[in-house]
Amino acid sequence: MNGNLTLIEEVRKQCPLVHQITNVVTVNDCANITLSCGASPVMADAPEEVAEMARLASALVLNIGTLKVEQVDAMIQAGISANEKGIPVVLDPVGAGATTLRTRTTKKLLEEVRIAYLKGNAGEIATLTGERAEVRGVDSGHVGIDIRTLAINAAKKWDLTVIVTGEKDVITDGAMWAEVSNGHPLMGAITGTGCMCAPVVAAFAAVSKEPMTAAISAVTTYGIAAEKAATMAKGPGSFRQGLFDALYSLDGDTIKEYAKVEWGRV
Amino acid sequence: MNGNLTLIEEVRKQCPLVHQITNVVTVNDCANITLSCGASPVMADAPEEVAEMARLASALVLNIGTLKVEQVDAMIQAGISANEKGIPVVLDPVGAGATTLRTRTTKKLLEEVRIAYLKGNAGEIATLTGERAEVRGVDSGHVGIDIRTLAINAAKKWDLTVIVTGEKDVITDGAMWAEVSNGHPLMGAITGTGCMCAPVVAAFAAVSKEPMTAAISAVTTYGIAAEKAATMAKGPGSFRQGLFDALYSLDGDTIKEYAKVEWGRV
Amino acid sequence: MNGNLTLIEEVRKQCPLVHQITNVVTVNDCANITLSCGASPVMADAPEEVAEMARLASALVLNIGTLKVEQVDAMIQAGISANEKGIPVVLDPVGAGATTLRTRTTKKLLEEVRIAYLKGNAGEIATLTGERAEVRGVDSGHVGIDIRTLAINAAKKWDLTVIVTGEKDVITDGAMWAEVSNGHPLMGAITGTGCMCAPVVAAFAAVSKEPMTAAISAVTTYGIAAEKAATMAKGPGSFRQGLFDALYSLDGDTIKEYAKVEWGRV
Repeated sequence: MNGNLTLIEEVRKQCPLVHQITNVVTVNDCANITLSCGASPVMADAPEEVAEMARLASALVLNIGTLKVEQVDAMIQAGISANEKGIPVVLDPVGAGATTLRTRTTKKLLEEVRIAYLKGNAGEIATLTGERAEVRGVDSGHVGIDIRTLAINAAKKWDLTVIVTGEKDVITDGAMWAEVSNGHPLMGAITGTGCMCAPVVAAFAAVSKEPMTAAISAVTTYGIAAEKAATMAKGPGSFRQGLFDALYSLDGDTIKEYAKVEWGRV
Repeated sequence: MNGNLTLIEEVRKQCPLVHQITNVVTVNDCANITLSCGASPVMADAPEEVAEMARLASALVLNIGTLKVEQVDAMIQAGISANEKGIPVVLDPVGAGATTLRTRTTKKLLEEVRIAYLKGNAGEIATLTGERAEVRGVDSGHVGIDIRTLAINAAKKWDLTVIVTGEKDVITDGAMWAEVSNGHPLMGAITGTGCMCAPVVAAFAAVSKEPMTAAISAVTTYGIAAEKAATMAKGPGSFRQGLFDALYSLDGDTIKEYAKVEWGRV
Repeated sequence: MNGNLTLIEEVRKQCPLVHQITNVVTVNDCANITLSCGASPVMADAPEEVAEMARLASALVLNIGTLKVEQVDAMIQAGISANEKGIPVVLDPVGAGATTLRTRTTKKLLEEVRIAYLKGNAGEIATLTGERAEVRGVDSGHVGIDIRTLAINAAKKWDLTVIVTGEKDVITDGAMWAEVSNGHPLMGAITGTGCMCAPVVAAFAAVSKEPMTAAISAVTTYGIAAEKAATMAKGPGSFRQGLFDALYSLDGDTIKEYAKVEWGRV
């Protein structure tokens, strides 16, 4: 971890293509946040084209927010294609724990695709590691374990970088941990703030060889954009619009000034 | 009907989970309006999980706005699950009357699921009760019957609470009727204002045992939020954003002050 | 071409119904832009109802942005229905050239449906005419041919009106060409600005018997709305909202004042 928090500047330079197979609720938000951080989104989930599209991309996001059984095969195909090309895959197990289909599908994806980043709320991640967890629709409820420990367990279990979003976002690869305290409560007043984090991580991952650096930089940048948006917002509608504005114009100096990151060795 | 127009305060306290099987056009708006009134949305329509998801929820919305035949079975499964749990089901028959598929599906849902609230425009409801009606895409055209009578007929026919949206929103359970004159013409200049009414009704229905109270309070609150948003809007784009802002911060006193509700016995 | 740039006034008078079979990413934007220019959108893609819905409409848009194989048949059915009724069909071959599925589907649609307007970026159109072209996801890369020549070749090849969007939008029916320099770079910072152009063209086409007039007027109006929105924007979020506001209130005199159109004979 080299402490590089200004990776967004590299994203803007390279404009990586981020292939996303995602849900119908926040797909538009995910495309727009990808553009706002300087990358280029492409949404494609037909089994007949996902492998081809993933080969064109620099990162892949898999989000099961409105999962259909037919999509699972497309996600696996795209994932394998991404693995072959060597581009990072970000998995967002939306609602894992809420229904059997979502839990089972997430486990299948973790088995059949080499996932680089697993990003979810505490309830979702705890469900996957077998901890006691409450998941209420797509929201996290109480989990019976310290979040940092939870994240570390998950990172070790699947040998990947874990991002557990929440009041503090916890990031770990099993060897290092970081906690990011940026962000704003209004993020919970709109849909999609969880989903949008994944393409931001994917865009940053596409331009960095260090997963912890990419994840910390992405989560911090996104959280600071939310803080900036909140200062101008009159409520969730204007906050949502302001989030795209703020991320689009955020510069490296501001990120360094506002970043609230703690970290250490596991 | 106890005249309780400030049920939104109860929604905010309880934060009911509203499961929605809805269309791809306004699904994001529906999720965001649910959050703006203080409830929690979950969108899930895979046949493999809808029954399980509905059992987690406090209300269910079925909206046929971009109906696929495969969705009908999922809607029925979710509806039956909701009926078994005893949570209210809100049906929004978007475009019934425009195509045979939509009309037939709505009738099937009314037969196989115990619907608590039927919310539609005059053209849609008139189609279903067999009145002469014009439906133009998803917009209502001329109907050959007085709207209050139409609503009462529908309420009696299916023994449920009917909400006919329009310049005046007419609400009736067949025994009482109410007419709400809140709202704003800009609601017709964006997509989704009809659709969004259903999850608001569902959220209110989840925290009230009186269907007329829930429906009147929901429709009035939503209409006043639209009025507030319109005062700040420069057009449909800013109106839409303002609608979420306004609903999010609307308090009980403002609702009581601005409510324009007339009612009586059938 | 009668130089009528104020066709939006006619759209507002007639409020044509525009049936759209489109992608899940920008479907909400497409519905809203249709309303903002004074027309009425209806999104429907179930094979069981598309032919019936198209018969109710005054124009049809086919957009392959998140194509599923099952949709192809629905698009063809709707297209044939539109052809039978004599209403214009606008095809937006999003991502043609990026994957085999998209290229093949576009060609199939061009063969089986009489398309009136083909609207795409240079990479997409060049792929279809067999020129050397780069397509990166849904973005155009370098093409090895002058854009005006490309557009004219495409117009002649399929006997239709072509709109190649880009820094300058090139419009031609093979006999006349026009280049519109309205628009703003922020259009590239949000998703959907390409997609939204198609329903605007469709709405204008629905009220005009002259395809070149309809296309030029639509593209110019849309570009000027973007310019107006950009003057008020703080970034892509507020630009997007402002686009709907600006288009909604744009009047004929402003359009005539700001239009930057060059044209000539082929």
